[in-house]
Amino acid sequence: MQSVIDFILELDKLKTVTRKTKTLHSDRYENSAEHSWQIALLAWSLAPYAPAETNIHQVIKLLLVHDIGEIDTGDTIVYANADWSALKAEELTAVQRIFGLLPAGQAAELLALWQEFETGATIEAQFAHACDRAMPVLLNLANNGQSWRENGISYARVIARIEAPISQGCPALWHYLSGKLAQAEQAGWFGG
Amino acid sequence: MQSVIDFILELDKLKTVTRKTKTLHSDRYENSAEHSWQIALLAWSLAPYAPAETNIHQVIKLLLVHDIGEIDTGDTIVYANADWSALKAEELTAVQRIFGLLPAGQAAELLALWQEFETGATIEAQFAHACDRAMPVLLNLANNGQSWRENGISYARVIARIEAPISQGCPALWHYLSGKLAQAEQAGWFGG
Repeated sequence: MQSVIDFILELDKLKTVTRKTKTLHSDRYENSAEHSWQIALLAWSLAPYAPAETNIHQVIKLLLVHDIGEIDTGDTIVYANADWSALKAEELTAVQRIFGLLPAGQAAELLALWQEFETGATIEAQFAHACDRAMPVLLNLANNGQSWRENGISYARVIARIEAPISQGCPALWHYLSGKLAQAEQAGWFGG
Repeated sequence: MQSVIDFILELDKLKTVTRKTKTLHSDRYENSAEHSWQIALLAWSLAPYAPAETNIHQVIKLLLVHDIGEIDTGDTIVYANADWSALKAEELTAVQRIFGLLPAGQAAELLALWQEFETGATIEAQFAHACDRAMPVLLNLANNGQSWRENGISYARVIARIEAPISQGCPALWHYLSGKLAQAEQAGWFGG
């Protein structure tokens, strides 16, 4: 029991990991804990648009754990020209430490979920990726492109980073977003 | 698709609903969105201590939606001497409005989950309740009784509000907490 409690209290740190997107109803940047809740709901609500065989419970679990490594590494905006393989190696070290607070069987379960998300080989992971890429886009579309403008992110850069995963994981969502993104470009909501 | 997006963007408001408990690693009050993520993880991690027949996916879903009504009503500390039936009626009105942004079938699914949690008739709802009552206690135990002291909440009041639901929903969790609460009383971490 104490090991579970230690893990849950360690998770409190994710509430202090800030992302580049602001919440819509207050002038602060969202954190990765509340983001993880919102994308779980996004995936769940988009279930009618998921491939027929998708296990939505598995998707929800993937999304609830996918950002926990940021407790040690912080968040990197998805549009960054970063060394993503080095970042992911750091995140793996982080989740091994954090999940390792749990009893071994539970730690292995969460690590397998984290790796399933990162590998992206299952339809559940692909659907989860689509949701994860779409969520900050939806916030930007509701917020005049706040994080794109603040970080100098161009329309082309956004498309390059999100078209493949969203159109693969949830084609209907890409169909919806591509039209909205074209409108946003015309409105001048991108940087770069 | 647009109705799902409208719902998800409406959920952003839960990030601005503040609770009475502070996050452990910054001097701000937690919000109900990040709380909902953390208790989903708490329930999931405590699954080995749940009754054998418990469907943990159902518990996670109950916890992800249980606080959404607070978008309209705000959060009320669980130890308050409030008119709880009136508060719950307001929350019902709220979730009917918010879930009603979704297509009818999905709205009905979420409303049924919200009502299952409130009614507390299933082992999943009872386990979810135990987790919901335990989470602020765990934060207080890690934070010298911050919200108990700030709000003048006595040891007796805490026990009166949490012993029954936690000991019913997750006996092992109550066994763990009752000892910690007795230590906290000796340490002077309660108000009232």
